Amino acid sequence: MRATTSSAEIEPDQQVERRPQRRQSTFTDRTQFKYARRLVVKLGSAVITRQDEHGLALGRLASIVEQVAECHVGGRECIMVTSGAVAFGKQKLAQELLMSLSMRETLSPKDHTRSETGTLLEPRAAAAVGQSGLMSLYDAMFAQYGVKIAQVLVTKGDFYNEETRRNLISTLSELISLNIVPIINTNDAVTPPPQTDEDFPKGKEGKKIIALKDNDSLAAMLAAEVEADLLILMSDVDGIYTKPPSVEGARLIPTFTPDMLESVKFGKKSKVGTGGMDSKVRAATWALDRGVSVVICNGMQEKAIKTIMSGRKLGTFFTGASAPSGTVPVEQMAENARLGSRTLIGLDPSERANCIRTLADLLVSKQDFILAENAKDIQEAQRNNTPKPLQSRLSLTPAKLKSLQAGNFSPFNFGPIIVYVFRPPLFSLFRPRIFQVAALALSSANGLLLKGGKEASHSNKALMSLVKEALATVGAENAISLISTREEIADLLSLEKHIDLIIPRGSSELVRSIQDQSQHIPVLGHAEGVCHVYVDSDADLRKALKIIRDSKCDYPAACNAMETLLLHEDHINNGFFAEVCNVLKKEGVTVYSGPKLAEKLTFGPPLAKTMRAEYGSLECAIELVSNVDEAIEHISKFGSSHTDVIVSENPAKVEKFLRDVDSACVFHNASSRFADGYRFGLGAEVGISTARIHARGPVGVEGLLTTKWVLTGNGQGAVDFAEGGPCKFLHEQLPLPQD
Amino acid sequence: MRATTSSAEIEPDQQVERRPQRRQSTFTDRTQFKYARRLVVKLGSAVITRQDEHGLALGRLASIVEQVAECHVGGRECIMVTSGAVAFGKQKLAQELLMSLSMRETLSPKDHTRSETGTLLEPRAAAAVGQSGLMSLYDAMFAQYGVKIAQVLVTKGDFYNEETRRNLISTLSELISLNIVPIINTNDAVTPPPQTDEDFPKGKEGKKIIALKDNDSLAAMLAAEVEADLLILMSDVDGIYTKPPSVEGARLIPTFTPDMLESVKFGKKSKVGTGGMDSKVRAATWALDRGVSVVICNGMQEKAIKTIMSGRKLGTFFTGASAPSGTVPVEQMAENARLGSRTLIGLDPSERANCIRTLADLLVSKQDFILAENAKDIQEAQRNNTPKPLQSRLSLTPAKLKSLQAGNFSPFNFGPIIVYVFRPPLFSLFRPRIFQVAALALSSANGLLLKGGKEASHSNKALMSLVKEALATVGAENAISLISTREEIADLLSLEKHIDLIIPRGSSELVRSIQDQSQHIPVLGHAEGVCHVYVDSDADLRKALKIIRDSKCDYPAACNAMETLLLHEDHINNGFFAEVCNVLKKEGVTVYSGPKLAEKLTFGPPLAKTMRAEYGSLECAIELVSNVDEAIEHISKFGSSHTDVIVSENPAKVEKFLRDVDSACVFHNASSRFADGYRFGLGAEVGISTARIHARGPVGVEGLLTTKWVLTGNGQGAVDFAEGGPCKFLHEQLPLPQD
Repeated sequence: MRATTSSAEIEPDQQVERRPQRRQSTFTDRTQFKYARRLVVKLGSAVITRQDEHGLALGRLASIVEQVAECHVGGRECIMVTSGAVAFGKQKLAQELLMSLSMRETLSPKDHTRSETGTLLEPRAAAAVGQSGLMSLYDAMFAQYGVKIAQVLVTKGDFYNEETRRNLISTLSELISLNIVPIINTNDAVTPPPQTDEDFPKGKEGKKIIALKDNDSLAAMLAAEVEADLLILMSDVDGIYTKPPSVEGARLIPTFTPDMLESVKFGKKSKVGTGGMDSKVRAATWALDRGVSVVICNGMQEKAIKTIMSGRKLGTFFTGASAPSGTVPVEQMAENARLGSRTLIGLDPSERANCIRTLADLLVSKQDFILAENAKDIQEAQRNNTPKPLQSRLSLTPAKLKSLQAGNFSPFNFGPIIVYVFRPPLFSLFRPRIFQVAALALSSANGLLLKGGKEASHSNKALMSLVKEALATVGAENAISLISTREEIADLLSLEKHIDLIIPRGSSELVRSIQDQSQHIPVLGHAEGVCHVYVDSDADLRKALKIIRDSKCDYPAACNAMETLLLHEDHINNGFFAEVCNVLKKEGVTVYSGPKLAEKLTFGPPLAKTMRAEYGSLECAIELVSNVDEAIEHISKFGSSHTDVIVSENPAKVEKFLRDVDSACVFHNASSRFADGYRFGLGAEVGISTARIHARGPVGVEGLLTTKWVLTGNGQGAVDFAEGGPCKFLHEQLPLPQD
Repeated sequence: MRATTSSAEIEPDQQVERRPQRRQSTFTDRTQFKYARRLVVKLGSAVITRQDEHGLALGRLASIVEQVAECHVGGRECIMVTSGAVAFGKQKLAQELLMSLSMRETLSPKDHTRSETGTLLEPRAAAAVGQSGLMSLYDAMFAQYGVKIAQVLVTKGDFYNEETRRNLISTLSELISLNIVPIINTNDAVTPPPQTDEDFPKGKEGKKIIALKDNDSLAAMLAAEVEADLLILMSDVDGIYTKPPSVEGARLIPTFTPDMLESVKFGKKSKVGTGGMDSKVRAATWALDRGVSVVICNGMQEKAIKTIMSGRKLGTFFTGASAPSGTVPVEQMAENARLGSRTLIGLDPSERANCIRTLADLLVSKQDFILAENAKDIQEAQRNNTPKPLQSRLSLTPAKLKSLQAGNFSPFNFGPIIVYVFRPPLFSLFRPRIFQVAALALSSANGLLLKGGKEASHSNKALMSLVKEALATVGAENAISLISTREEIADLLSLEKHIDLIIPRGSSELVRSIQDQSQHIPVLGHAEGVCHVYVDSDADLRKALKIIRDSKCDYPAACNAMETLLLHEDHINNGFFAEVCNVLKKEGVTVYSGPKLAEKLTFGPPLAKTMRAEYGSLECAIELVSNVDEAIEHISKFGSSHTDVIVSENPAKVEKFLRDVDSACVFHNASSRFADGYRFGLGAEVGISTARIHARGPVGVEGLLTTKWVLTGNGQGAVDFAEGGPCKFLHEQLPLPQD
């Protein structure tokens, strides 16, 4: 359950970029919606009406008003097109009918009359009754957001007359220039003109007017006339499907281009989707022809407008621009990866090993290409005033490329898990991750999608082209792909059908955000590394000093660096505490006190804000404990189950600590910095997991494998093993078959 | 993203049970809220005001109106107490001030004036301005749900005068009896009387009146006067915390009894929670004294009222009734289980084995007790007209108890994963699961919470008492507990801090619902078993027939039964198809055609509605494929990754099938029915997993284990292994240490 932020506050959207000129073509992808200055939102009556058709879906309507207000405050120019008077009127009439019924009936807890009165009402009468009420409701709602609106009641006939249409459009433009949101209420009470299909009067600048069969086409026409950038058609359908949604295998099309029109029309009736979609698609493509991008979406979805404007893949986006050649939608990439992994599984382990070797060779032979592409990223980083340390991390050198060892993978043969990796900044100090992870996937016969940071996009594309080249030698080019940096994480997390595992690499915030967001795809990783070193009363203090220094100072930004030092309270008086402080001071470490240490000292280090901090820098907390049990308790309360260390020469206490501390790595008399896949001999590491199921601690190739039970029989049935049957289970351990 | 059902339709809540008499005491647990007939809901101004304090949080307010209307339609008597006029008025005044500003300013896209005007307004003036607008908004909103309301504007002074108070209460009672929802608008515009603390006039029947310091106390007084069953105080706090929520380790208290009042008051200031909580708690306990149950909750939470009325643990529930002695809150149980698992880990494997043996012995020695308790469940089942097959499943016999083999577990020693098992009906045909799973947990040193079905509650309690008895012999009594049947699944799924793994056992609907709901706890299980048998062109048809019959008919309700038979198209003409149909017909199996088979036959079996069906009975689909690749493709498209079989004598095709079918179990020339933990030699089985990570296929004790990396050093630091350092990594395989 999440808190309703829906109306907690109204924040302006990210500021819209000012453009003097109108855009000449439609948006080419959803990330450009942030530049949409003029926006038309059309609410189908299904969106604003309750399912029983008696009255408005008030909560939903309020949320939509809020989102439109938000867009307006953020600097967009919004126009709403809405119907709904029928529903409002029905409710009102039903109530008034009820009022006139006998008191006895109205007092019964269930108004059986309610459902009956509804059917008595003629829609157009209801619309007439409801119109004023609906309009005053919009007034009241927008007033709550301090947004000035002007409501215009239109009939379809108004649009067929060129003069009234021009008047209307110029009124709308004027309202917008006065910073007022126009609400177009379509007058459902008035009979629409006879539906003609082909010949319409010419509009402004010779534009052909669309057949105004419904409010979708009306909204499309309006959007074109006011030169909107984006039109959002909200109804009760999710968007355009490849087949009717009821048919097995039907899939929502996230991006629709006019050239898909033929392929999507399916079956004998040449319809797109189910009822009503035909006219929606027609309205959308009509608007598209006139430079308006369109999104058809389900208005029942929470925060639909906000979600769409943020660039996420809700509904179907109509764009006139075909995708650049070679661009594959991410859903397709994921499917391809699954198929590619099948090819990899079919390979002999030695073939996969060869492929990895090819990859390593390419890294050397194509060095100039990689460095040239990398130079582009560096230049951009300089232009953007990226901090120097990040720039040097980004930068590749021949030495760094040489140090890349792709090999050393066991020839396992299982699969297919699709792994998805995210990691800005993409480069760890020495080894470009993209190669490591690609080699791991290859070696474990997994399909893989990689998503890197924007700041390294040229380098990543160059590296990926080498990966593809190596994969092509074994016919599995599609098993590994690089996802566009434009893809939204949230959209990827909804691909649970295709993606089996997600491995986020990057900041704690990134990892935690992915862990929190991912509802149905397991996430392998750790958000925090709050690692402890406990120095027991029976510790060898020379070892302890060395381990403390190494754990904290060897590489303070690493997740396996010590964050809290737990000292047995004996050490406060035997001089060791002072010694530790001196060593840490010499290394430039800022020390904080835990509450118990602070209580003990009159003038100690400043109090730590929390005992759960991951400093990730030359800072650490020191706390006192009175025995190994308290140390274990502290770690269980404040630790992150990553890596914890005991320094002690007392076997009983060591055993207790190693047994009872429930972390992925527990060390005795060794630095926490050893918690690392390479150091553990796992070869390349995909990450460190603090989860309690599947792989735990540093994860190498084995963590990317799954099990499969293979049984070979000779026609046996379970019935043969029933009581009194001819067979019985032996459950003996058999030798593994030789490969 | 989920569809907004918020206002899609308004359904009456489950019908409220009619009670002639008012309840004499408060509810003892949340499941009783369904009996709450009279309900007072108080909205704090934080709930209905936007964060900028300019205007109402419209979306939230609409949702609350909807929920109250829903309660009303469901037969509850609702009263709302609300403030909020200040916010409304502020917004209105700010707007009117703006209107009078120069046009130039209003035309700027951002109204800088808005924030300034806000501060100019005096709250009481704003309230006066806003009152009428707020009231008309409530009118409009409730009208949308066909609910009649009457709004009453009260001032605090009205309550101190006994006559006005009595008049008010009798008006409220009358309104309720007329099936009208009274909305009490507190008049913020009028100065409250001086705050006195101790001496108040006596109310009706000598009740002492609470100090009306705020709207919480006013709502409490009203609730007591109208003899409400439940009072919901909604504000912006989540409920009562053990410490201020900002302090580390603070925990929300789900159920609060007056005897906790002292223990929860903490610190020097003797405050409960943070600002304002003191008076809330006072109001709540005051109402409690007068027989009104109270829930304090955060009104920002979506669907708070609905969630609370459904019995879920939102906010803090104030009850006068202390929990029955021996009842432990489930959060506490989970913590205890984690501690208990530590005890288990500390045991010698032989001690755990002994404990399991004790458990098995108790089953025999306490046989009479178990059978007597079981008889109570059977009696209840008979009284409830439970279907006979379920009754016989429920029933325990000495023979069934004897067949229970608890042993045969490997002495592994890892942990602690807390496993949570759900399974109504609890009993599989022969072996009470509770024992199997308890033995698995014991053997793997895991903490365990069990939740069984209500229909077996006596038997389960009896069995659990034996488990506890056995655990007590090793001092780990709390490692395994039985959760009350009243606990809501959704509440358990939010305990991700404590629970590491959930294993649901039961219907597909149950498993799928838990998989869908669980956002952060991994779920081990499978929702569906859509198993295939593929009969290749090179099959031994005698084997094929036997395998088909066994896979479908041995136990059709099992998840590993065949649901779809894939026949190579050769078999349509060689007589095998007819033979298969005869065999299935003889066994009483109803056959459906896949689309390809249907196209081939003029008069074939009826068309299958879907190829993804899990019939779970004597029904199956038959489909044609033209080669092994098509079979693999079909399985990948429609299967559930559970168990799939190839019948063939062609080694190349068999290899391809076994390699490319990505299911937990892939069999060659053997019945799908072998996919079972016992048959695989895993001992007791906790479930069958179709996930791709962690355990896959039948899961025994090993699936309940996790890894831990233990490293023993001699003071080494990572720096020792740096280039040029004294040490280097060897990465040799070492022999395992002997236990």
